[in-house]
Amino acid sequence: MSFLTLPTYEDVAAAARTLDGHAHRTPVLSSRTANEELGAELFFKCENLQRMGAFKFRGAFNALSRFTESQRRAGVVAFSSGNHAQAIALAARLLGMPATIVMPRDAPAAKVAATQGYGGQVVFYDRYTEDREQIGRDLAERHGFTLIPPYDHPHVIAGQGTAAKELFDEVGPLDALFVCLGGGGLLAGSALATRALAPACKLYGVEPEAGNDGQQSFRSGAIVHIDTPQTIADGAQTQHLGQITFPIIRRDVDDILTASDAELVEAMRFFFTRMKLVVEPTGCLGFAAARGMKDRWRGLRVGVLISGGNVDLPRFAELLAPRVST
Amino acid sequence: MSFLTLPTYEDVAAAARTLDGHAHRTPVLSSRTANEELGAELFFKCENLQRMGAFKFRGAFNALSRFTESQRRAGVVAFSSGNHAQAIALAARLLGMPATIVMPRDAPAAKVAATQGYGGQVVFYDRYTEDREQIGRDLAERHGFTLIPPYDHPHVIAGQGTAAKELFDEVGPLDALFVCLGGGGLLAGSALATRALAPACKLYGVEPEAGNDGQQSFRSGAIVHIDTPQTIADGAQTQHLGQITFPIIRRDVDDILTASDAELVEAMRFFFTRMKLVVEPTGCLGFAAARGMKDRWRGLRVGVLISGGNVDLPRFAELLAPRVST
Repeated sequence: MSFLTLPTYEDVAAAARTLDGHAHRTPVLSSRTANEELGAELFFKCENLQRMGAFKFRGAFNALSRFTESQRRAGVVAFSSGNHAQAIALAARLLGMPATIVMPRDAPAAKVAATQGYGGQVVFYDRYTEDREQIGRDLAERHGFTLIPPYDHPHVIAGQGTAAKELFDEVGPLDALFVCLGGGGLLAGSALATRALAPACKLYGVEPEAGNDGQQSFRSGAIVHIDTPQTIADGAQTQHLGQITFPIIRRDVDDILTASDAELVEAMRFFFTRMKLVVEPTGCLGFAAARGMKDRWRGLRVGVLISGGNVDLPRFAELLAPRVST
Repeated sequence: MSFLTLPTYEDVAAAARTLDGHAHRTPVLSSRTANEELGAELFFKCENLQRMGAFKFRGAFNALSRFTESQRRAGVVAFSSGNHAQAIALAARLLGMPATIVMPRDAPAAKVAATQGYGGQVVFYDRYTEDREQIGRDLAERHGFTLIPPYDHPHVIAGQGTAAKELFDEVGPLDALFVCLGGGGLLAGSALATRALAPACKLYGVEPEAGNDGQQSFRSGAIVHIDTPQTIADGAQTQHLGQITFPIIRRDVDDILTASDAELVEAMRFFFTRMKLVVEPTGCLGFAAARGMKDRWRGLRVGVLISGGNVDLPRFAELLAPRVST
């Protein structure tokens, strides 16, 4: 993989300048109850309070800001049924360029509506018979669109790294930082920021237990592919790390941990009842893993990156207040 | 009422110094969607993210901080089934003094547990046959406790005013500010801060439609008493304004508005889906009223004080995602 040029902290710092005034500088919150439970001082970086409800806006806006004039005129294409779709649609609107989003025909109506609400042109595909990457590439070729993948892109990674940069800028160095892990865009970006701003900080990526391809890859040294995992953490149902995210993670991250769906539900309940925050299951990965190794951080300073809060109300109620069947 | 010495902005400024390092400096959040809906620039001061989940901590901590040494030794007593109980219990624990809270025997178990979890001694009474104010006064007399009422106290009012002070300190003067209104502690404190820091700002108190005693009092010039109103805004089910809160409100507030329960539910849904915030019904009063007069603020800067986020998950689900009866 030596032919790839990996992004560096300089790219994260440049992304921070690009995002200034466009992305929210999200709050860092604390909780006495969480501190007491872990015996540590916790700092929650709340990307669920970011524009469109997730950190994904950072990477999307940074990537689209670096388009040439002809790329802007033609526009962007992305395939996603989740937060990346809305992030690209919103960033494109803010930058005045057309966006085409390839989504499965059975995507939740709310997500389709949100993407269209941000001005995105939605193209549907059948997730059982069609290949969304091929459709994306075809659209790019036919119309001159630039394809922006959800995580394996240097400008996306640099943009995502600005969340951890803001956290360190605000609270100073930490002893540990827990970051959720799907395809690795947020974790790789956080790694660049951490190694530059808090070199001694232990950095953990956290995956759903049912889909630990990142852990397997990290430990074996080669990218492991898995089937789409069955987990409530729909933002981390990725099948493999990327060609750019993996080498950064392998080099700069201390370990990859996992959390079960039951632990994610308990973390969601904690955020709701004690911190008054709506956090989607994927966004709970970091805190769930931090709770699992609580005595390890006694008396120390621990960061937790909350990645997003996009969960439907009926789904939220179903997960946290299941109906008793009669 | 000329025998009463009303608190002033100097008391709010002193309270801010007292609270520094003890209360959270809560974030001020914005929402593009809310801005577009109202055609204005909105600033949401998030006291649902305050310690124990509501602004009440500010007034309680400020009042208890001003106890004499002998008052501290004897401790505090309060009667409340809501946020004031938890606020007093937590503030007393932080200041190392005993707290006794008079609560109805049928108070929700979660609220009793939360109050006890903060170290409060709970004394139960029967809300149908006993008078909680009398019980509180008896306990105060018998044990030398100092009674701190939920709103009609100068140190409580000054403490509550620090939320609006922080808002103006952070975003500068506003054209309008919407504050929820129960007994008037938060509104009176906000009035002191507003008249000192943003004299031209229109200031509105907002009550539940079913319990508009404050509106009647404001317009008639005398404190109106009503029966306990039937509304989901349980933090604003007060029956009358206070001897201290009323004259400040009459002098410094521009008008008192109301919001219906249906409008509160819609605001709760907005906060959940668009801002990823858990807000209790009472905390939605300000935004609900601002939405109701939207064209009035086109192109202007509007503050909304979100008072708290203490709502049980089953109750939250019931209000926002009601079960279809079969």
